[in-house]
Amino acid sequence: MSEPLQTEQFQSTLAIAHQAFEHFQHGLATGEWQAFLEMVTDDFSFWFPMGPFHGLNQGKARAAEFFQYVSNTFSSGLFITLDRVIANETTVVFEFRDEGLMAGAPYKNRVAVSFDVRGDKICAYREYFGSDGKSN
Amino acid sequence: MSEPLQTEQFQSTLAIAHQAFEHFQHGLATGEWQAFLEMVTDDFSFWFPMGPFHGLNQGKARAAEFFQYVSNTFSSGLFITLDRVIANETTVVFEFRDEGLMAGAPYKNRVAVSFDVRGDKICAYREYFGSDGKSN
Repeated sequence: MSEPLQTEQFQSTLAIAHQAFEHFQHGLATGEWQAFLEMVTDDFSFWFPMGPFHGLNQGKARAAEFFQYVSNTFSSGLFITLDRVIANETTVVFEFRDEGLMAGAPYKNRVAVSFDVRGDKICAYREYFGSDGKSN
Repeated sequence: MSEPLQTEQFQSTLAIAHQAFEHFQHGLATGEWQAFLEMVTDDFSFWFPMGPFHGLNQGKARAAEFFQYVSNTFSSGLFITLDRVIANETTVVFEFRDEGLMAGAPYKNRVAVSFDVRGDKICAYREYFGSDGKSN
């Protein structure tokens, strides 16, 4: 099966999203979010499925609060197995499974995150849950 | 922004997934699932995030049961607004919002479905929820 012949725009979007996803993965594992936050635009917005950050959240400061909250919730880290990457010229979707401890109890989920790229940054993302926090 | 120059394989995957998604949308709106089920392989499998079909479900018969259950749950239909389509040579992700009545009560969600294409059929899909059933 041949690879699609992709444009420069597509290749750039994919490279930026991959870099951001590496930082995202590092943040989940370690609680260090600075590298990821440096890759989001000032007007960054994100949708989260549940909890205190449910719905649309706007701005980089709100994102910093959110990722702190995530790392407080999973204080020993959340670890990702990446299953699939799907991209177009502006959006890249990562399908993955994650696993860790939530307040000491085993946690597992399936997740899809959809990153929108503008220039060399992530301007928005949407997170979707594919399981129940107990199996993946 | 120029369009990516895509291969035949990519174009075929995208066309098959779009056709299946139209039937999927029709099934959700009307309860008529035959056209969608004709487009899935005999070994079709799907992952669903919650409820009696939570987890991995295998086989076309199980899929038929599932879609009947969905249409019983949303007996007056579930209606989709498609936001985004992201594709590679084997997988197509549809990000959408849906809205309807669940047992008579207003229901709204955000959803990502990821369809895997093999030949001219869908061989697997994974569903992910981006909201709580109350807002989208």
